[in-house]
Amino acid sequence: MKLHRLEEKELIEAIRKEFFTHQANLELGIGDDAAVIKAGKTYLVITKDLLLEDVHFLRRLHPSHLLGRKSLNVNLSDLAAMGAEPKYALLGLGLPFKTEIEWIEDFFKGFKSAAGKFGVKLIGGDVTRAQKVTVSVTLIGEGKRIIKRSGAESGHHLFVSGTLGEAREGFLLLKRGFKLGGDKKKDKMLKAFLDPTPQVELGMRLARLQLASSMIDISDGLSVDLGHICKESRCGAEIEKEKLPISSELRSVQRRAFDFAMNGGEDYQLLFSVPPSKLYAVYGLKKKYSLTHIGKTIRGKGIFLIDRRGRRQKLQSRAWQHF
Amino acid sequence: MKLHRLEEKELIEAIRKEFFTHQANLELGIGDDAAVIKAGKTYLVITKDLLLEDVHFLRRLHPSHLLGRKSLNVNLSDLAAMGAEPKYALLGLGLPFKTEIEWIEDFFKGFKSAAGKFGVKLIGGDVTRAQKVTVSVTLIGEGKRIIKRSGAESGHHLFVSGTLGEAREGFLLLKRGFKLGGDKKKDKMLKAFLDPTPQVELGMRLARLQLASSMIDISDGLSVDLGHICKESRCGAEIEKEKLPISSELRSVQRRAFDFAMNGGEDYQLLFSVPPSKLYAVYGLKKKYSLTHIGKTIRGKGIFLIDRRGRRQKLQSRAWQHF
Repeated sequence: MKLHRLEEKELIEAIRKEFFTHQANLELGIGDDAAVIKAGKTYLVITKDLLLEDVHFLRRLHPSHLLGRKSLNVNLSDLAAMGAEPKYALLGLGLPFKTEIEWIEDFFKGFKSAAGKFGVKLIGGDVTRAQKVTVSVTLIGEGKRIIKRSGAESGHHLFVSGTLGEAREGFLLLKRGFKLGGDKKKDKMLKAFLDPTPQVELGMRLARLQLASSMIDISDGLSVDLGHICKESRCGAEIEKEKLPISSELRSVQRRAFDFAMNGGEDYQLLFSVPPSKLYAVYGLKKKYSLTHIGKTIRGKGIFLIDRRGRRQKLQSRAWQHF
Repeated sequence: MKLHRLEEKELIEAIRKEFFTHQANLELGIGDDAAVIKAGKTYLVITKDLLLEDVHFLRRLHPSHLLGRKSLNVNLSDLAAMGAEPKYALLGLGLPFKTEIEWIEDFFKGFKSAAGKFGVKLIGGDVTRAQKVTVSVTLIGEGKRIIKRSGAESGHHLFVSGTLGEAREGFLLLKRGFKLGGDKKKDKMLKAFLDPTPQVELGMRLARLQLASSMIDISDGLSVDLGHICKESRCGAEIEKEKLPISSELRSVQRRAFDFAMNGGEDYQLLFSVPPSKLYAVYGLKKKYSLTHIGKTIRGKGIFLIDRRGRRQKLQSRAWQHF
């Protein structure tokens, strides 16, 4: 059997299942946002991502300092989803010979700006020749309390941070030739895709205050990532359609705004569940963070959309497709 | 300036210097075989390698189970050089759509055989689509005592494990079309390149017994890697030409055997320095490990070869070139 007979997502799922089996002795096996190992009284949380040219980004469309920043930020988002404090990064970089030194300098500037902002130390890594730009980041964080995907129970409230769907719109604008520095509305969308902000502080706050029973970052799209929480927590979910946080800017330019918010991917916002007893405290956090109460977990399987008239519709989760 | 104006090694050196600056608060900065962070009473040692198709390996020539094994083993060799005990691995894998499932299965079999042999747990990672096979391994180990490159002083004795130069010969045989399963001599050379064995136990033993003042694994070639020890330890070295551990098999097939042993690379043996007071104890280890006393460190700069008549010749270190 060859790989092209399978859809990308199915393939990756199959490989994960087959080869990345759970291991004893670990707090978490493979399948959460990051791996967790015990180190004395605290947990070390480790995440790793490959970003490949022409698979995850197009070099000519992605300004290199933003690419450098994004390559760390997407890993920071994985740690945020566990509630961990980011500490150390290792950067593996494969570069074609024709790469301009300025490009590399800008990449590192971007990487270091994210590292500086979130207090991450670059402690190692390697540079090698490559045929296409290959970025491999390993990020290590620490936490006394770790939030898993699996802790939700039926009747918990679901929240997301920020707004959804703009990165998808930004990605399409980029492919249609739009660049940063044009009009304000388009810039917002482009930035959401090119330069996402990981919700590190919010994630740590939720962990420290023990407010979230489960958490994930939205990288594949709300529908897919909520599916992960439901699967790991063995529950279903109901989302109130009208509640999804969609910016007025996105609504004004894209009539598929709801679809983008539901299935767009690359939002790097946090999705988390809150037990009823903690609801009041989470509402308190809304002073400081942009948080939206979008629904709740339910018994059984499946994710359902509830419209304003109370009608229920079962959701088909759809994956984000790259280039 | 574009990258192709620089030699690969110079380029990488320049990038390392420019971008991977030392950081405070860490036991070791970038530049040793692995990064080291403190975690309670012990050190965590972290190493990371990118292996890229057509840069570090040729897919059609490298059996996939051996490639899987080598991808972990070269990282194990980095930990061995610090004297650390390997614990956890994360594997990032980029796969072209046309990859056969059997290839992937064999790759994981190989990876897991090395993991099993050295007690490493695969705790995380990711699979993604790619245009060429892209392997990114992060390996985490632990150690109470870490051996750096920088601890040698003049008058320390230099040792290497195993034999040198065979991997280079194996690489050339491979490119000339030879495969494993032919004659015994060629198989030995091919295996040295395709399936190297990291000196994990020896490295840990040297650290635990505090016998080595500095250590490195020989990945770029003895001349280059000894150069790293000399640079970091601010000393020079003398190597007795006749002492280099070159197998009779290599001598019998390759008249450039000495050159290969000195500059070949990919040996994944350990090179370490021993203070005079520990010499007796290291000789004791020769019962269990293949160790050769090849020379000593000296005051000042430069690496010198001493021939059997006592003549001294300054060495020019030469780097291993990939495909």
